[in-house]
Amino acid sequence: MNAEIISIGDELLIGQVINSNQALIAEKLNSAGVFADRMTTVGDNEQDIIDVFHKAFSTHDIVAVTGGLGPTHDDTTRAVVCKFFDTDLVMNNEALDNVKNIFAHRNISPHKINEDQALVPRTCTVIQNRFGTAPGYFFERDGKYFFVMPGVPYEMKAMVDDFVIPFLNKQKTGLVIRHLTLKTTGIAESFLAEQIGDVKNIFSPDSRITLAFLPSPLGVRLRISVKAGTIDEAERNIQEVELKLRGKAGKYIYASGDVELENAVGILLKENKLTLAAAESCTGGLIADRITNVSGSSEYFECGVITYSNRSKIYELGVPADAIRQYGAVSKQVAEAMAFGIRAKAAVDIGISTTGIAGPTGGTAEKPVGLIWVGYSDKDETFALKLQFNYGGGRRVIKERAAQAALELVRRRILKISEE
Amino acid sequence: MNAEIISIGDELLIGQVINSNQALIAEKLNSAGVFADRMTTVGDNEQDIIDVFHKAFSTHDIVAVTGGLGPTHDDTTRAVVCKFFDTDLVMNNEALDNVKNIFAHRNISPHKINEDQALVPRTCTVIQNRFGTAPGYFFERDGKYFFVMPGVPYEMKAMVDDFVIPFLNKQKTGLVIRHLTLKTTGIAESFLAEQIGDVKNIFSPDSRITLAFLPSPLGVRLRISVKAGTIDEAERNIQEVELKLRGKAGKYIYASGDVELENAVGILLKENKLTLAAAESCTGGLIADRITNVSGSSEYFECGVITYSNRSKIYELGVPADAIRQYGAVSKQVAEAMAFGIRAKAAVDIGISTTGIAGPTGGTAEKPVGLIWVGYSDKDETFALKLQFNYGGGRRVIKERAAQAALELVRRRILKISEE
Repeated sequence: MNAEIISIGDELLIGQVINSNQALIAEKLNSAGVFADRMTTVGDNEQDIIDVFHKAFSTHDIVAVTGGLGPTHDDTTRAVVCKFFDTDLVMNNEALDNVKNIFAHRNISPHKINEDQALVPRTCTVIQNRFGTAPGYFFERDGKYFFVMPGVPYEMKAMVDDFVIPFLNKQKTGLVIRHLTLKTTGIAESFLAEQIGDVKNIFSPDSRITLAFLPSPLGVRLRISVKAGTIDEAERNIQEVELKLRGKAGKYIYASGDVELENAVGILLKENKLTLAAAESCTGGLIADRITNVSGSSEYFECGVITYSNRSKIYELGVPADAIRQYGAVSKQVAEAMAFGIRAKAAVDIGISTTGIAGPTGGTAEKPVGLIWVGYSDKDETFALKLQFNYGGGRRVIKERAAQAALELVRRRILKISEE
Repeated sequence: MNAEIISIGDELLIGQVINSNQALIAEKLNSAGVFADRMTTVGDNEQDIIDVFHKAFSTHDIVAVTGGLGPTHDDTTRAVVCKFFDTDLVMNNEALDNVKNIFAHRNISPHKINEDQALVPRTCTVIQNRFGTAPGYFFERDGKYFFVMPGVPYEMKAMVDDFVIPFLNKQKTGLVIRHLTLKTTGIAESFLAEQIGDVKNIFSPDSRITLAFLPSPLGVRLRISVKAGTIDEAERNIQEVELKLRGKAGKYIYASGDVELENAVGILLKENKLTLAAAESCTGGLIADRITNVSGSSEYFECGVITYSNRSKIYELGVPADAIRQYGAVSKQVAEAMAFGIRAKAAVDIGISTTGIAGPTGGTAEKPVGLIWVGYSDKDETFALKLQFNYGGGRRVIKERAAQAALELVRRRILKISEE
């Protein structure tokens, strides 16, 4: 079965909102053996929406629509859906109770526009909303499936998890699709490609297996995709390719699937009973933010400091004022003193640090924007690595790349992987 | 002129990558008076790409394509573009020099697959790439414009800024489109709608003005859109509507346009010559990360600490061990002591703090997941606000909402806006 994912909303067309819903729905559909081969975005315009519905319904088995179900005057999806399926609105009592409960929980009374959200197309199956007031709708016509959901990502996600995927899993799709992503960092795409060599040596061109290189500022992901007749066959093929890729580029692979570097580092710290603290200057808290995105990080993350001023580098971390005067705040010496300082102060096993020039201002000929020192300290060694990033992605990308490099340094030191 | 934006890449269709390119291009096109009324995503499949190119070229004046121009075997866009425009590849010397320069800068030699990126369709105008090795292409046919660019966001953005927008600005579009977004936080969508009242009292329905409510976990944005014959008329209409909206809901509006709350707070701190420090527990560095995303934040941001352990709350901030024992780490007393502690230690004007339960674990009946205390301290007052978020968006959204609330608290205290 193939699917088209349709997003509705002027805010998407003028570029004000980045659409994360399409990716989430596509990934979930894949897990149920459904491949989305088209994604479309249209505005809150009746004729455009109808056109896109007709086209999608005539070329796809499944249509998933999000957006435009809110309570305000600019939300038009519900009316267009009624027109498309030639039906009218009725009050749904369960949805109305849901609206009332949500407002009762906040100790406030719903307004009429809130209660009106419980009006649904007469001929649909209602998909209740666990986290918001707008219900979703499901239509089945001529063996095809049409899902309509709100645009709020977590409301939509709950409907996909609760309703769409269980429903599709009950239907027979006859094709198993599986993907596995291996995440690398610290190596450029073309060098990784060379390390891996000709893909014909990894799988035969007619095997329904594909390998894609997906570069980003934080690293290159290797995505293995297989289509197969059975789950067993699909998983066996994935595993074989994974093994071969790890044989060729294993040291650069920090995780597979959805796992972030901070999760991989967290697992290593926990397994080795090590604790960590971070002293950040140019990354401004991003390393700590990433580490603490992991539930349970309090087991190994003791504390972080963001020493943005020179003064705070001295009083928070004991960086010698002389070192800052002589070498500058962005220097090997200061990065090392910061990593050592936070390790000593927090009484942890590993201290990491960053100091650099995130830009756009503050660069010089000798120390240009994008120059970063990443410091590392454990009981055996204290050192710092010099990195030079280009400013193409701006200040934020410099911060992200520096934080990534610091986390990767911790991973490689725990695993005793050499730097080149 | 209308436009269709086309993204190419299997990684988008399986949901592995969130597409931020379409939003960026749409926004830039708008600034040149071009409205993108359709966005489409297809995979790395020749027939699908050709179909989408034909449809887009027959219904739109402008087609902007991104993705699939990389050096590896899964990138197919260039070959399909040659087929669509019935042309072949030639080496472009400027693009080849660019490839060589990029590699020379890294002190490494380009491989053949890197040099081959300088092969371009014979009949196109080449768009050089300032930040990467893959050039873009421009075709003009029958008064319609076709742009092809790489999928790497900052490479694409530079091409849009350097080439696409200057080119379009030279053409006459005859219609001025302007948008203004007013960003609010701390008020629910339906209450904001009530505060604003019937939009007919703000602008007449036939005035080519629209107002949209765009809710997100961090707040509701109000987007004013106008179409007009002249820039003057468009800007006058925007200003009138803005003034009326500010009259009705001004205290909730922290910024307009692209300005983030951390920028708005930064400006207030600078104008009032105030300095800030943050003591974070549940937000884990996110407040500092956001503050330091602003270039020049070192002028007012002295330092931050992430006291993830109870022990570090005591030794870093001087929180009384008794308070933690008696009330728990997630409590009014500890939030206040943290805000006071960081202000005293860093010798700044304002200290803020967060302590809460970001989940998914750690909640109890009395202190459920999503409970957050935000502390504030200046020379006149030290207090904490209690917030309760639902867990719909997960741990990350709890962190984001808590960080937003802390920054908003600083804004309201500097402006002496009362809570409720």
